[in-house]
Amino acid sequence: MKRNDKNISRRDLLAGAALTAGATLVPGLQGAAQNPPTAGKASATAPPPVIPADPTAAPGAPTSAQSVRSSFENPARTPVGAQAGSSLTPLHHLTGTMTPNDLMFERHHSGVPAIDPARHRLVIHGLVDRPMTFTLDELKRFPSVSRIHFLECSGNGRAAYKEPKPEMTPQIVDGLTCNGEWTGVPLATVLREAGVQSAATWFFAEGSDSAKMSRSIPIDKAWDDALLVWAFNGEALRPSNGYPVRLFLPGFEGNTCVKWLRRIKLTDQPNMSKDETSKYTDPLPGGKARQFSFLMDAKSVITSPSTLARIERGWREISGIAWSGRGKIQNVDVSTDGGATWRAAELQSPVLSKAHTRFTFMWDWNGSATTLMSRASDDTGYTQPTRAVFESTRGKGTDYHFNYIRAWRVDGDGAVSFSGAS
Amino acid sequence: MKRNDKNISRRDLLAGAALTAGATLVPGLQGAAQNPPTAGKASATAPPPVIPADPTAAPGAPTSAQSVRSSFENPARTPVGAQAGSSLTPLHHLTGTMTPNDLMFERHHSGVPAIDPARHRLVIHGLVDRPMTFTLDELKRFPSVSRIHFLECSGNGRAAYKEPKPEMTPQIVDGLTCNGEWTGVPLATVLREAGVQSAATWFFAEGSDSAKMSRSIPIDKAWDDALLVWAFNGEALRPSNGYPVRLFLPGFEGNTCVKWLRRIKLTDQPNMSKDETSKYTDPLPGGKARQFSFLMDAKSVITSPSTLARIERGWREISGIAWSGRGKIQNVDVSTDGGATWRAAELQSPVLSKAHTRFTFMWDWNGSATTLMSRASDDTGYTQPTRAVFESTRGKGTDYHFNYIRAWRVDGDGAVSFSGAS
Repeated sequence: MKRNDKNISRRDLLAGAALTAGATLVPGLQGAAQNPPTAGKASATAPPPVIPADPTAAPGAPTSAQSVRSSFENPARTPVGAQAGSSLTPLHHLTGTMTPNDLMFERHHSGVPAIDPARHRLVIHGLVDRPMTFTLDELKRFPSVSRIHFLECSGNGRAAYKEPKPEMTPQIVDGLTCNGEWTGVPLATVLREAGVQSAATWFFAEGSDSAKMSRSIPIDKAWDDALLVWAFNGEALRPSNGYPVRLFLPGFEGNTCVKWLRRIKLTDQPNMSKDETSKYTDPLPGGKARQFSFLMDAKSVITSPSTLARIERGWREISGIAWSGRGKIQNVDVSTDGGATWRAAELQSPVLSKAHTRFTFMWDWNGSATTLMSRASDDTGYTQPTRAVFESTRGKGTDYHFNYIRAWRVDGDGAVSFSGAS
Repeated sequence: MKRNDKNISRRDLLAGAALTAGATLVPGLQGAAQNPPTAGKASATAPPPVIPADPTAAPGAPTSAQSVRSSFENPARTPVGAQAGSSLTPLHHLTGTMTPNDLMFERHHSGVPAIDPARHRLVIHGLVDRPMTFTLDELKRFPSVSRIHFLECSGNGRAAYKEPKPEMTPQIVDGLTCNGEWTGVPLATVLREAGVQSAATWFFAEGSDSAKMSRSIPIDKAWDDALLVWAFNGEALRPSNGYPVRLFLPGFEGNTCVKWLRRIKLTDQPNMSKDETSKYTDPLPGGKARQFSFLMDAKSVITSPSTLARIERGWREISGIAWSGRGKIQNVDVSTDGGATWRAAELQSPVLSKAHTRFTFMWDWNGSATTLMSRASDDTGYTQPTRAVFESTRGKGTDYHFNYIRAWRVDGDGAVSFSGAS
C-alpha cells in the first residue's frame, strides 16, 4: 500500500496478513516490523498453533465458561516449585497497574494449604471483652469495602542487590510486588464487636499454613486501614493468595498480611515470634538491627523496555510502575543518560494511595549506548535514594526493603540489560 | 468457646475446624453458620476435594507458574457454546468492581477468530492524507494510556425484559457488562499520523472475525476518548476480548468497540453496514426507530443478595454495581420496601467516569416478605427510570438499552428471586 493510495481494494484487506512491513508509516516507526522488539514475548517458547492465513474465512471458536489466553501469550511466574519459597510476578509482561489473579507473586513459608471455607474459622481473642469465632459467611455479613492497593514482599529486590546480573529481567529484579482491588471488612469493625481492652497495644496474626506464619502489628494499624479480605480483583482469593481470608495491611510489608488467617490475638506487646525475629528484622551498620520496619518506602521500576529486548532507534515509550507504602506517588523522574539529567514522566490517573502507579516517558533514542533509570517521590516528600546513599544508611548487609534506584543498560545495538543500580 | 472465655488452649486452635457454629457472635450474626447463605456458591456443584481436617498438619502445595482457583470456587460464564451468541459475566460471584479476565462476558457474531499477532495489521484509510498500515508492535510504540472503564452490550437485560422469570440471577439478568483497566493508544494519536481530512465526519471500524463485524462512529468520539487497546487488567487481551487489538469507546455500547480490529476508514457519513441497520437500531413507538444510540445510560443492579440465596433475619449488606456511559455515578438509592421509600447507598471510592461503581447498603431484615431495588443517578442529573416510564418512552417493542430499575423479591422464608421490574 502506497502513500495517498486511497483505493484500497477488498482483496488487499482480506490479504491483511500479507501486507508488507515496508508500508508507509509514521516517522520513527519505520522498520519496526522487520525487527520487532522481543520484550515481553514469553510466547516465543510456546509452539505456535495452526493459525488460518485469513481469520475471516471461517467461523471462529464458540463461547466458553472461562476464556483462555492466546497461545501467543504465556506470562508465567518464576521460579516455581518450592514450598518455602517464592514465585515472581512477570512485571515485564504487564501493562497498566492491575495484576491478573493467576500471576500475582507468591512467597510462602510452608506451601499453600488446602482449606475448606465452610470449616475455616477466625478467632479473635486475647485482650478483648468478648473472644469470638467467625465463619467466612459471618465475616461477609459485615459492611464490606473494596480498595486498590499494592502488596510487596519486604525481600523484593534481594537477589538483584546481593548479586546483580545483566540477564535479570524486571520480573527477577522486582517481581515480588502486585497490585489490585481487595475486598473485605475493616479489621476495626470486627474488633469493635469483640471489644478491645485499653491495655491492647498490639495484635498478633497467625495463618493456617503448617509454618503457622505469624506477625505482631501495632494496634493503630487496625484502627487505620487494616482489612480482613476474601477477594482480589473481583473474585475470591486464590489459595496461593490466602484463601479463604487473609489479613491485608495497606502499605505494610507483604509478610505482615498473613494469609489463611485463623486467629488474631490482642496483646500489650509484640509476640517476638520466629517470623519477626529470625526473619523480617533489618541488619544495620555496626551490628545493630532495626525492628520493626513495616512500611514499604517509595520505589519504582522500569518494566519496558526490559532485559532481553532489542530496541530500535527513534521514538519509543519507557514505561514502569511506582508505589509507596506511605501514600500517593507525587512524581516519577526518568533519566536516559545514566542519571546526569532527569525529566518528569507522565503518571496514569487515577493516582491512588498505596497503589502501583503506571508512569510513561517518550524517548527518542539516538542509537548511543546509555543507561535508563527511574526515581519515584511520594507525597510525604520522600524520594527513592541512590544505591550509594542506601548502602551508607543501611550497611552492605541489609536484607530487606531494597528501594534504591534501579538502572538498565542500553547497548549501541539496542540490547537492554540490568546494570544493577544507580 | 464461650463469652469471656479468654483462655483458649492451643488444642482448641489446632482443632479450628471443629469449633462449633454456636459460638458467641455479634448480635444479628447468630445462627448464620447453621444455615449459611448460598448466594454466590457455584462451588456447590463441584465435587469437594479431599481437604485435611488440620491444614497446618503438613506442608502445602508448592509455588506454580499460574495459580488456580480453589476447588470450592467455580465462577463461570453462561450459557456457553454458541459462535454467534453470548456468555454472561457471573455478576453474583463478583466483589468490588474489577472483572477477572477469564470471566468477562462474550458477545460474538461469528465466533472467536484465531489470530497470529505478528501477522495482524490495522489499516487506516479513506478520507486521510496518508493511508497507513500498522503492525501491533508499531501501535505499541505510540504513547500508551491505561484507563478503568466498563464495557456493556446494548442488549444487556433483553431476556429479563422480554420474559422475566423468578429464577433469573444477576448474571442472567445483566451479565453482559464488565469493568477493568484498558491499555492502548488514543485513536486520536494514530489518526493524527494519518492526517484526517476536513470532510471526515465519521469513521468505520471493521473486525477480523468471519462476520466482519463493523460499525460507523462519529469522528468526535475519536478526538475525545476512543482507544485502540491491546491489554485488559494488566495482560494482553484474550482472544474472546478482541486479541490482539480492539477498538474501545468508553461509555458507548459494546458492539461499537469492534474486536479483532483490522481497519478504520474515515468517511463523510455512516456506512449503514448490516450491523448498524438490521441490528443495533432501536424500535420506538409508532413504527419509528432510533438510529444511532451509542451511549449507555445510567443503570444499576443488586448482585447480593441474589437469586438462589436464602437470607437470614438481621443485619446484612445489600451490594451491587452502578455505571453510566455519560460520566460518573452521582448516587445510588436503595429501596427495601418495593419502592415506597429510598435511601442513599455507600459508594466505594474512587468513583470513576464511565466505570462500574460498587454500592453497599446495610439492611436489617425483619423477616417480612418485601422487594429490593436500586436506582442510580449520574453526574449529568439523569436517573434510572421505572419500567413504566421506560416502556412509555420507548414502546414495548424496544430491543436495546434496557436500563430501567430492577426488582428482587424476598420471601418470608428468606428466598430471593427476580421479580422483573419496578
